[in-house]
Amino acid sequence: MINKLVSKIKKTNAPIVVGLDPMLNYLPKHLLDKAVAEQGESLEAVSEAVWQYNKAIVDATYDLIPAVKPQIAMYEQFGIPGLIAYKKTVDYCKEKDLVIIGDIKRGDIGSTSAAYATAHLGKIKVGNTEIAPFNEDFATVNPYLGSDGINPFIDVCKAENKGIFVLVKTSNPSSGEFQDRIIDGKPLYEHVGEQVAKWGEDHMGDDYSYVGAVVGATYPEIGKVLRKVMPKTYILVPGYGAQGGKGADLVHYFNEDGLGAIVNSSRGIIAAYKQEKYASYGEANFADASRAAVKDMIEDISNAISSR
Amino acid sequence: MINKLVSKIKKTNAPIVVGLDPMLNYLPKHLLDKAVAEQGESLEAVSEAVWQYNKAIVDATYDLIPAVKPQIAMYEQFGIPGLIAYKKTVDYCKEKDLVIIGDIKRGDIGSTSAAYATAHLGKIKVGNTEIAPFNEDFATVNPYLGSDGINPFIDVCKAENKGIFVLVKTSNPSSGEFQDRIIDGKPLYEHVGEQVAKWGEDHMGDDYSYVGAVVGATYPEIGKVLRKVMPKTYILVPGYGAQGGKGADLVHYFNEDGLGAIVNSSRGIIAAYKQEKYASYGEANFADASRAAVKDMIEDISNAISSR
Repeated sequence: MINKLVSKIKKTNAPIVVGLDPMLNYLPKHLLDKAVAEQGESLEAVSEAVWQYNKAIVDATYDLIPAVKPQIAMYEQFGIPGLIAYKKTVDYCKEKDLVIIGDIKRGDIGSTSAAYATAHLGKIKVGNTEIAPFNEDFATVNPYLGSDGINPFIDVCKAENKGIFVLVKTSNPSSGEFQDRIIDGKPLYEHVGEQVAKWGEDHMGDDYSYVGAVVGATYPEIGKVLRKVMPKTYILVPGYGAQGGKGADLVHYFNEDGLGAIVNSSRGIIAAYKQEKYASYGEANFADASRAAVKDMIEDISNAISSR
Repeated sequence: MINKLVSKIKKTNAPIVVGLDPMLNYLPKHLLDKAVAEQGESLEAVSEAVWQYNKAIVDATYDLIPAVKPQIAMYEQFGIPGLIAYKKTVDYCKEKDLVIIGDIKRGDIGSTSAAYATAHLGKIKVGNTEIAPFNEDFATVNPYLGSDGINPFIDVCKAENKGIFVLVKTSNPSSGEFQDRIIDGKPLYEHVGEQVAKWGEDHMGDDYSYVGAVVGATYPEIGKVLRKVMPKTYILVPGYGAQGGKGADLVHYFNEDGLGAIVNSSRGIIAAYKQEKYASYGEANFADASRAAVKDMIEDISNAISSR
């Protein structure tokens, strides 16, 4: 799957991923009103609106991008109906041949981590029948519990040709509280990065590992260090746009070949219609605004990479 | 909710929680066969068997215990039908007046953490209607992302009178890879413990905080240290029984008042019928075996506390 991700990035010339994180206040009013008219003020209604919203954005952007990253929390908040919308979104993006990074940030130990891995990347066997419960291509994973938490994911990745992105340095202001603490002369995130590189050796694609890393766009100097610590690791970069990251800040997350990183934008794309820059599209044409925002983001990052 | 937990622990005289972690190979054959006969080899069938399994165990033990801890990964692995069984289990335990600790180990940042908190402890507002998506009483939370990840949970806990247990030192063998690393002369878990105590000051119940901690039973010496670092923090202790922890090892997780900790057993209770000790019950009477195992566990821990 890492090979597919790399090949799709090359083909689209777009090292970006669209974060499908449908917060309630992003949903265009007409979609929510219609769903509520049909299904009342219910989790079912809001989840139907989420699904219609996602579908329109995917239809408007799938030819430009290699991958999507649905954030499962934004679906989980709508309970079971929300998770049904998550699964419908994953299935639909698969039909469109997009690579799907499930932003699930799961992490537990032993058989429990194995259960999460099965849920999102693997198959469960009931009698003689194998069923893929959620079937994303990649999942994000939390490293705090150590190798016992990560290895069960890697086992499933090997069996299913899938991958993970391990949290190394997150994009939020307080990420330093624990991640930046100095251990043996180096910050914790560097130790985690070294471990990610080591885990990754165990499951390599052609040029990059199936074990990737998450490094926030908001810490470019750290990105530069971690790029060197993990040369064969694909870096998933959140925090572009709304959280403050710019293309020019991100050049050092990429290797010399222009590969090695994929930059996520969520709000900046899916709620583009709410920005002054794209307001002329109007709320009704939110998906067209998203397409314009995708094009601008690709240009920003491509320019930054080519002019470094 | 921490007050309710403490009062139920006093009433039952049982500082234990039953982990409802229905792995596929724990399910008694007759339950799975019946469900497959009715619904085929499907996620629906296995989830129905899980629900019947849980219901029987809850019916056989609820009068002895204060709380249950369903591990969501074990339901998520069965996809949407599995999560429906999770929700049914939570709702049923609530009917039985049990405190429900959702072992979800979520953790993200800002609005995403808020979405997880809403999903599991809070309410979502659709129009004028408020709906509780999963409605557990407590949730376990991963601290790797720092305060940005924890504060949104605390906000929801304050609004809803609910609580969290933050991972401090987990029970698995590799938990030391990052958690034991020395920072400024102290292991990371101690720094996290100090932070948990600080977060906890912000949301106190009568004697203990709504912000609890997870400290594995497999590291008694560390439990002793963390008990002192976090005097007002309830400690959720996994790793008893199957993972090797014994009552005698756990006395220092408790305060002098015999409170301050709640010990989880999953496999040891729900799959008791598979142990030689309880084999005479037979697979058909798995729930009676669970009841016997609960009584033995309460005795083991009570004896340890009273004889210290």
